[in-house]
Amino acid sequence: MKRVLVLNGPNLSRLGSREPEVYGTLGLEDLRNELEKAGSGFDIDLRQTDSEAELISWIHEAIDSQTPVILNPAAFTHYSYALRDAAALIQQAGQILVEVHISNPYSREQFRHRSVISAVATGVIAGFGFESYLLALELIRRRIG
Amino acid sequence: MKRVLVLNGPNLSRLGSREPEVYGTLGLEDLRNELEKAGSGFDIDLRQTDSEAELISWIHEAIDSQTPVILNPAAFTHYSYALRDAAALIQQAGQILVEVHISNPYSREQFRHRSVISAVATGVIAGFGFESYLLALELIRRRIG
Amino acid sequence: MKRVLVLNGPNLSRLGSREPEVYGTLGLEDLRNELEKAGSGFDIDLRQTDSEAELISWIHEAIDSQTPVILNPAAFTHYSYALRDAAALIQQAGQILVEVHISNPYSREQFRHRSVISAVATGVIAGFGFESYLLALELIRRRIG
Amino acid sequence: MKRVLVLNGPNLSRLGSREPEVYGTLGLEDLRNELEKAGSGFDIDLRQTDSEAELISWIHEAIDSQTPVILNPAAFTHYSYALRDAAALIQQAGQILVEVHISNPYSREQFRHRSVISAVATGVIAGFGFESYLLALELIRRRIG
Amino acid sequence: MKRVLVLNGPNLSRLGSREPEVYGTLGLEDLRNELEKAGSGFDIDLRQTDSEAELISWIHEAIDSQTPVILNPAAFTHYSYALRDAAALIQQAGQILVEVHISNPYSREQFRHRSVISAVATGVIAGFGFESYLLALELIRRRIG
Amino acid sequence: MKRVLVLNGPNLSRLGSREPEVYGTLGLEDLRNELEKAGSGFDIDLRQTDSEAELISWIHEAIDSQTPVILNPAAFTHYSYALRDAAALIQQAGQILVEVHISNPYSREQFRHRSVISAVATGVIAGFGFESYLLALELIRRRIG
Amino acid sequence: MKRVLVLNGPNLSRLGSREPEVYGTLGLEDLRNELEKAGSGFDIDLRQTDSEAELISWIHEAIDSQTPVILNPAAFTHYSYALRDAAALIQQAGQILVEVHISNPYSREQFRHRSVISAVATGVIAGFGFESYLLALELIRRRIG
Amino acid sequence: MKRVLVLNGPNLSRLGSREPEVYGTLGLEDLRNELEKAGSGFDIDLRQTDSEAELISWIHEAIDSQTPVILNPAAFTHYSYALRDAAALIQQAGQILVEVHISNPYSREQFRHRSVISAVATGVIAGFGFESYLLALELIRRRIG
Amino acid sequence: MKRVLVLNGPNLSRLGSREPEVYGTLGLEDLRNELEKAGSGFDIDLRQTDSEAELISWIHEAIDSQTPVILNPAAFTHYSYALRDAAALIQQAGQILVEVHISNPYSREQFRHRSVISAVATGVIAGFGFESYLLALELIRRRIG
Amino acid sequence: MKRVLVLNGPNLSRLGSREPEVYGTLGLEDLRNELEKAGSGFDIDLRQTDSEAELISWIHEAIDSQTPVILNPAAFTHYSYALRDAAALIQQAGQILVEVHISNPYSREQFRHRSVISAVATGVIAGFGFESYLLALELIRRRIG
Amino acid sequence: MKRVLVLNGPNLSRLGSREPEVYGTLGLEDLRNELEKAGSGFDIDLRQTDSEAELISWIHEAIDSQTPVILNPAAFTHYSYALRDAAALIQQAGQILVEVHISNPYSREQFRHRSVISAVATGVIAGFGFESYLLALELIRRRIG
Amino acid sequence: MKRVLVLNGPNLSRLGSREPEVYGTLGLEDLRNELEKAGSGFDIDLRQTDSEAELISWIHEAIDSQTPVILNPAAFTHYSYALRDAAALIQQAGQILVEVHISNPYSREQFRHRSVISAVATGVIAGFGFESYLLALELIRRRIG
Repeated sequence: MKRVLVLNGPNLSRLGSREPEVYGTLGLEDLRNELEKAGSGFDIDLRQTDSEAELISWIHEAIDSQTPVILNPAAFTHYSYALRDAAALIQQAGQILVEVHISNPYSREQFRHRSVISAVATGVIAGFGFESYLLALELIRRRIG
Repeated sequence: MKRVLVLNGPNLSRLGSREPEVYGTLGLEDLRNELEKAGSGFDIDLRQTDSEAELISWIHEAIDSQTPVILNPAAFTHYSYALRDAAALIQQAGQILVEVHISNPYSREQFRHRSVISAVATGVIAGFGFESYLLALELIRRRIG
Repeated sequence: MKRVLVLNGPNLSRLGSREPEVYGTLGLEDLRNELEKAGSGFDIDLRQTDSEAELISWIHEAIDSQTPVILNPAAFTHYSYALRDAAALIQQAGQILVEVHISNPYSREQFRHRSVISAVATGVIAGFGFESYLLALELIRRRIG
Repeated sequence: MKRVLVLNGPNLSRLGSREPEVYGTLGLEDLRNELEKAGSGFDIDLRQTDSEAELISWIHEAIDSQTPVILNPAAFTHYSYALRDAAALIQQAGQILVEVHISNPYSREQFRHRSVISAVATGVIAGFGFESYLLALELIRRRIG
Repeated sequence: MKRVLVLNGPNLSRLGSREPEVYGTLGLEDLRNELEKAGSGFDIDLRQTDSEAELISWIHEAIDSQTPVILNPAAFTHYSYALRDAAALIQQAGQILVEVHISNPYSREQFRHRSVISAVATGVIAGFGFESYLLALELIRRRIG
Repeated sequence: MKRVLVLNGPNLSRLGSREPEVYGTLGLEDLRNELEKAGSGFDIDLRQTDSEAELISWIHEAIDSQTPVILNPAAFTHYSYALRDAAALIQQAGQILVEVHISNPYSREQFRHRSVISAVATGVIAGFGFESYLLALELIRRRIG
Repeated sequence: MKRVLVLNGPNLSRLGSREPEVYGTLGLEDLRNELEKAGSGFDIDLRQTDSEAELISWIHEAIDSQTPVILNPAAFTHYSYALRDAAALIQQAGQILVEVHISNPYSREQFRHRSVISAVATGVIAGFGFESYLLALELIRRRIG
Repeated sequence: MKRVLVLNGPNLSRLGSREPEVYGTLGLEDLRNELEKAGSGFDIDLRQTDSEAELISWIHEAIDSQTPVILNPAAFTHYSYALRDAAALIQQAGQILVEVHISNPYSREQFRHRSVISAVATGVIAGFGFESYLLALELIRRRIG
Repeated sequence: MKRVLVLNGPNLSRLGSREPEVYGTLGLEDLRNELEKAGSGFDIDLRQTDSEAELISWIHEAIDSQTPVILNPAAFTHYSYALRDAAALIQQAGQILVEVHISNPYSREQFRHRSVISAVATGVIAGFGFESYLLALELIRRRIG
Repeated sequence: MKRVLVLNGPNLSRLGSREPEVYGTLGLEDLRNELEKAGSGFDIDLRQTDSEAELISWIHEAIDSQTPVILNPAAFTHYSYALRDAAALIQQAGQILVEVHISNPYSREQFRHRSVISAVATGVIAGFGFESYLLALELIRRRIG
Repeated sequence: MKRVLVLNGPNLSRLGSREPEVYGTLGLEDLRNELEKAGSGFDIDLRQTDSEAELISWIHEAIDSQTPVILNPAAFTHYSYALRDAAALIQQAGQILVEVHISNPYSREQFRHRSVISAVATGVIAGFGFESYLLALELIRRRIG
Repeated sequence: MKRVLVLNGPNLSRLGSREPEVYGTLGLEDLRNELEKAGSGFDIDLRQTDSEAELISWIHEAIDSQTPVILNPAAFTHYSYALRDAAALIQQAGQILVEVHISNPYSREQFRHRSVISAVATGVIAGFGFESYLLALELIRRRIG
């Protein structure tokens, strides 16, 4: 079964664990379930880290194993050129990296309007909640499923 | 059958009609076909215009008929605050408007990095070719299909 | 009876037609009524368009007929240098063009703080709801009534 | 009789007192007369000061006495955040403060295009000479007259 | 006889029709005459529109008919990325589009110093009055006459 | 008993006097009381002015009397280089000047993010309500108490 | 005994260990001692890390254990939006996070004038040496001690 | 004897009164003496104020009495558009206003590089210590002495 | 025979002398020939220099001899205000100076988009290769030929 | 034998491992070999990490062991003020830190033109491929070899 | 007799030679005469050049001969960092260099508001016509006469 | 013997000739000696000029004679696009041009942080004193020695 790396950046581990009346009760575990339900035919390898270095190492792993990547860079979106350089390696290898965002960054603070990653991603899906990931998985299914 | 408005902005009529070795041989007619194939259950109402005013009137029509919108604003993306105000009306009505782009604007000229529309769209899907539209349709199917 | 052109830009046709609990129940028809009540002695020619070209043609018409203009450029305020050049023709002809805004643009998004029209308008009245138009009419009555 | 505070900022005392061939022969005294003629039913309390602190104290007085304010901040328009904070107190009290300008600041030097006051004013009237004040008075008459 | 499209943007219809002591008495009709006199061997198809969409459609027509274009974008010069995308199609087709300006935009307001069109035009001729068009025609005669 | 100057800039006289449900019922008098309770051993000399010049004179007085200063510059924070130059005199004299803010300026409007005073203050305490002053007093007690 | 987390960002481990004639001979161990002496009633949990991820995890820990935080983000102050997002979680949980700086960042290089953290901190204390921490502890004692 | 107004802005009263090893022992009184010695034939009317309003009133007085002005605006140089508007009145009256600075603002902090006054001064003399004033007096002697 | 000065700035001596497969085999000598062929009736005085001072002296010579100028400022276009001041002297003398560029600066690096010369040139012709010069000559022939 | 720390930032582990036709077949191992061949007399301690914290810790180690550093900060160059603060410690200790880059950052994307490290490095060597490191080693040999 | 170097930058040779109704009939020769009349006791060595290199060499000469300099950099004011570095050498040698301007650069085009020279000049005198030079000479007389 | 051109820009002739306690006693002659000692096998052709044009001509000479270049552009670094265009010709010819700086421009004034040359240089070596040149020579020896 083809694997998909679903990589999540800093603070995304906190999804669903608190203030459920505000953020909903769904966390990364629920996201994994939704992706698994939707992604029949794919082995969903969902990970989260607050570490820029670990995120980069996972992208290197994706290159070596030729695994498509769904990446929610979270706050790294706005400044981590190190992550960008890693993402660019995927682009140069002709593999897929989809940048996703749960909320719509363009309707939030000014600093969230700029992504240093997007220019080297295959494409961007933003603003649809967990469905941003599901659409990214659908794109991967269409391209290499 | 539920209708979906697939609205395309200026110069998109030229897709596929020339320089096929560069842009491919696929035009808006082919896009309509792909959407119809994918969108079983939806009546695909694909339109194109070079006119800002006509695009705005179609969005007004979408509000009145409560029709979800897939919008490729093309070059209007970067300066048409009139189109933004129309899109904001959709947002205020609690309806869906998905901003799509065929190419990845973040890897093109500097002026294409800024969208005046995104802040009031439900979300953005950019960079996946015609599949940007197909994913937008998938999102609509999930939400109101 | 002296005519006054009351020109309204994109999306202003939507005033009053929906979400009355938010925007009130008053639309352009009500505005016309208020202006007619207030403007005894003036023939109120109120129009709305989403088209930049049509708005420009109306301003040309105002020049040829030497009719004073009340202009709510709506979103065109922020980028339409074509509209500005038309408005400048009115200024050069020594006629009156009053720029009006229903809401106070300076207390809204950053992009609404800049008007490309104001420099060539006779003056600006902004932030008083429909009364912005009524004050503009009062100004015209004082100057040429 | 309802009072209206007509507050004028720095250098406006010089209106009319010199170079009559350039600026006209009308000064603040004439303005008071015009406002009194127009404002039947209002007690016109016109004042001028070059002092930011005095202007602020007058605005505080307006809050305490619930008096509507017509404010020509003159050069303070462009930098006096202290005046802005005072004006914001009026806005928070639900009272009226109309920012007026005799000339059109948008057709003058670049630094005059920015007002730090407008965002917290009820609205702005600019560019109509003394008539900017008269329209402001008309607005007050309509709202609370 | 080879045709040349001479396309004129918003407000250029007003040339010559008023304030002759300021702008001269020459209008677009006179321009057409001058071009016809100068352009023996060319069929001068001079058009004017205030509509961005119509201007774009004329450029599409030029591509399909392989007609060289002389374009005075007027105020669209400074913001119409839609027009730019149309002009870029001409560039990609290897055809000629000469951007012309009657006055020298670099000696006017700051906003006129930036053209969003020039980067995709064959070249630019600005500042020579009607002679800007005549030189553009001369260039076309040299290249394809 | 060692004196401390607690200097408050424009509009701070309005604290507590109105809209108690929003701003609380505490005013400068209450602040003085809290400081006196906390500052046993210090003579609390709390003053307020809307006048830049008076504020500067008080700082000059602090230098001459070698009195430590707690300064809430209010709106002057953002533009009064005259106040800055006065504060710099304190710094050059090796005395203490603590800049305090009741609210957190960094979570308010953009123009409040910049302080022209901070660079020449001993330090800054912002965002803790009246406790910002109490901490400043504590600092002074530690340093010279 | 109530615990307080005193978190220190990159390079702060070097305090006191070298160039004592320049930086003083006091290091983090001395800071801990001073805080413990001052903070009777609090369990001072002072930590230092050069790792953005570890700092974020400590803030997550603070949320889960409802521990107040004193945070010296050091150089992360100026670019770590990941740290900001973590700090914002504390703000949303209604807990205390005090941003402290030993030196006065506003009197140093330009890049140190901007903090991406301050907007979501409870408040900021900067410029008082180790006393910045002691004042932060005092604030916590006042609020929850 | 012809009078010259020598106007000094905020904090200049502190010249010479402290830190003589740094700033020298010379104050405004010494400056007056030097000007009187140099300015035989002129009545030196040297004043200092920390008040923007008072400085403006002195400039108004200069206009009414047709007295030439030597103005050291001190920190007002960088933001007081109110002072600029007063200075512009002098320019319009065809009188002399020389802007002077003791130190060279261009070799100090960035914010001191911008003068909002200079554009409407007769000219600027900066960087020569008290001799800046003496040269200004020499200029006045040459022009109207 | 009327003379025309064709002045070429730095590095233009290298045209045609190397890498002919890239830049073509045509150099300034060929340009002179083309201009002479085209410019019957004109004495073509073509010069090149890498020296800003020499270029300025040639423009002074053009003023004294009332000779029209075709100027390719090359890299001086982007920063030589000294050259601009010289060109402005031509403008003030009512003579002709046409700024030409071989390539289209607007489709090259960002720094090439700004010309400090254009505002004081009669007009600009850019992007047509050697034909930019030929059109400039044609303009001169029309005006003074 | 004197040791030299050759520290490499994020993604540099990927050198040589893929797309050899583009990037060459040489990786960090080859770089070590070249440095060892060239650096007779030095113990080459070459390391790579994607972790900002680890890189900082190695620089701390260099300070403690008084080892000269060759640092290729890779993408950290453009935003890691934490790394800058570590590098500044080396500068303050009077030791050597040479910033190197394999490619020429000034001929790549705009964001690569800014280094936050350079101001506190001993110097910078950029653009010479692996030879950038060899020159850095040569510099160290000259200074302390 | 003590020599003074009066150095004039590009285009200043054109003073007085043409358009006398606009610029007056006075040229550099007249300036020399005025300086000689005023500067009894000084040998006035007035020079002009359009060459940046020559101007720099004259400044080097001034250093070697310890001659005070009056410098009108003309257009070099705004961009010649080479001239600035030369002027800085004078500053470092403790000699005098007075920057003068005939007109007031702050009331002209935006680009003339910035001087790259002023920061390293002894001081600046601008806006007084030829009297700017005379005041500079007076300053030199006071300092070293 | 292979020749190397060592080209030095404005003011570098002043190295070593004055203030030896500050800049050292070494001048360009000493640099030549050091380079000759180090560059066995190379004919060191060291030159200095304050003239942009002469520097450009030397670069042209380098192209024609296929001589590698070590270039210290001094202040030209920051604005001479003419020099950049010359350097770009070297790059296009596949020859070597090493940009060197004696001091570290990134730790000096803001304007020195930007080089308009670097993008077209083979690489940059900055901050190592005369050793910057020696390393450049070493690079040339490695490449073509």
